[in-house]
Amino acid sequence: MNYIDIIGDDLKKVDEQIKAFLLSKQKVLEVALRELLEAGGKRIRPALVLLSGKFGKYDDKKLIPLAAAVEILHMATLVHDDIIDDSKMRRGRPTVQSRWGKDIAVFTGDFLFAKTFLLLAHSTTVENMRSLSKVVKAICEGEIAQYQSRYDKGVTVRQYLKRIGRKTALLFALSCYIGAHESQCSSKVLRCLREFGFNFGMAFQITDDLLDFTGDAAKTGKPVGSDFIQGVYTLPLIYAINSSYGEEVIKILDKESYDAEDVKRVIELVHASGGIEYSRNMAKSYLDRARAFIEGLTPIPAKAALENLLDGLADRSY
Amino acid sequence: MNYIDIIGDDLKKVDEQIKAFLLSKQKVLEVALRELLEAGGKRIRPALVLLSGKFGKYDDKKLIPLAAAVEILHMATLVHDDIIDDSKMRRGRPTVQSRWGKDIAVFTGDFLFAKTFLLLAHSTTVENMRSLSKVVKAICEGEIAQYQSRYDKGVTVRQYLKRIGRKTALLFALSCYIGAHESQCSSKVLRCLREFGFNFGMAFQITDDLLDFTGDAAKTGKPVGSDFIQGVYTLPLIYAINSSYGEEVIKILDKESYDAEDVKRVIELVHASGGIEYSRNMAKSYLDRARAFIEGLTPIPAKAALENLLDGLADRSY
Repeated sequence: MNYIDIIGDDLKKVDEQIKAFLLSKQKVLEVALRELLEAGGKRIRPALVLLSGKFGKYDDKKLIPLAAAVEILHMATLVHDDIIDDSKMRRGRPTVQSRWGKDIAVFTGDFLFAKTFLLLAHSTTVENMRSLSKVVKAICEGEIAQYQSRYDKGVTVRQYLKRIGRKTALLFALSCYIGAHESQCSSKVLRCLREFGFNFGMAFQITDDLLDFTGDAAKTGKPVGSDFIQGVYTLPLIYAINSSYGEEVIKILDKESYDAEDVKRVIELVHASGGIEYSRNMAKSYLDRARAFIEGLTPIPAKAALENLLDGLADRSY
Repeated sequence: MNYIDIIGDDLKKVDEQIKAFLLSKQKVLEVALRELLEAGGKRIRPALVLLSGKFGKYDDKKLIPLAAAVEILHMATLVHDDIIDDSKMRRGRPTVQSRWGKDIAVFTGDFLFAKTFLLLAHSTTVENMRSLSKVVKAICEGEIAQYQSRYDKGVTVRQYLKRIGRKTALLFALSCYIGAHESQCSSKVLRCLREFGFNFGMAFQITDDLLDFTGDAAKTGKPVGSDFIQGVYTLPLIYAINSSYGEEVIKILDKESYDAEDVKRVIELVHASGGIEYSRNMAKSYLDRARAFIEGLTPIPAKAALENLLDGLADRSY
């Protein structure tokens, strides 16, 4: 059961709502946003809002704006992320900042944040707004932590997990939570879906980080090694640094700049150290935990769709 | 009647609340924010919230968090502003971005936005949050418009006024509005205070922009000419460009880079053209309008304090 089968029509409405909502008198803003939106992405977060809503009183009038708000918030963090990373490409297209400059990117992100709250102020409870503000705050702290720990070869697995929790998993958890909350699910169901979202988010980010070492630039839309070249050390590399290959890895990372040979060698060493397998196992354990949290829920089609999301991610990482 | 006499104690509480609220596990964030806060500023926006609240049922428990939120929002826009302007100094101190880098500055601003909404979600109505989101959106559009029109010698007075309306005056208007709204003022009083705020904000920004041509770098904390060097053409210069001195002004502005002599000459030409006087008169007409809007309000001390704010600004510009 694919989620498109269940909520595909409503996801289309989410996209339409985002498009309508992002109209602006500032042409550059509108063009930048339209490109961002049309570049695609899987709309995983809106899907989580809608699927979670299916466990209670599903009201599309309420849930579609919420799902749109979550995606707009995600877009805001992407735009600001790309400033930090100095990314030239995102989803295979030029980023807002590489096309329009950092300055426009700063305000494009701010505009999206403002729009998120504006959309929410129209459509949800103060409690949901509060939860969302907290997540935005955590995302910012996570990004700052990531930036601060750049090039830090002493970064631990625990620090990494905490960082991706704030950067990614909390918004997954929130997406599930507000969907279920708006549909008046019981507090037990709320908790299960939120935990599902968090653990799925952890697995999602670990899998995404793996692509920096195993991915195909043509598919991912960004060159392999991008993360560690920018000093962002993710799980496979952290593992390699702490393995018997650590010394050689560090020797390369300590260079002033990396040529293609260096990047290739680091990736080889990460593979040789077992860092890929270790990270896949870690992702798998989060997927298992996510699965366990929804095991007891009523077996409606949305439940099968959530499980299908887990399967899809497992396939992607193996 | 100075506003400090009336709401000085509550303004101190606003500062304490901001400080307490900006604690973060990310040390760099906390240090950056504390510096920003301690660098001062006149807390005009919180003062407008509190003074406007005096026209209705003044409840410090409600108004102090609102006033704090408005100042935190202002701080957020300052931090992101400085990224765009590439400012090295703000209020006589290094900016977040010059001290910590653009990347930290992006997320410091985002963190402040999130905090603003978090504080509001705790303390105000959905309607006030909606108004505030709209103002944030307008501020972003204003900043983008400003950025887009940089180095545009064809920029008109009308475009300038529209830009500063969005960039500054709307938040002044909102500060008055939410203070009065929270205190349950009548819709007539609400409207008068909002219009007062808007017109005061216009005069405030025009006066601030004048300092780029008349100011003392030691007092303003930024060198004269900063705005037009960065391509931001404000009212005195727009006037000069369209005067009989226009040709010489444009000839200098068209240079690849400006030396000290160029900057001095532009300032001289702006003075010679009458651009200073014109801008002062424009500020004065907004101050007069602001004054007229509150003329009919009950003569409580807060009213005298609002008038005193107008007088203070008039003194600053003459």
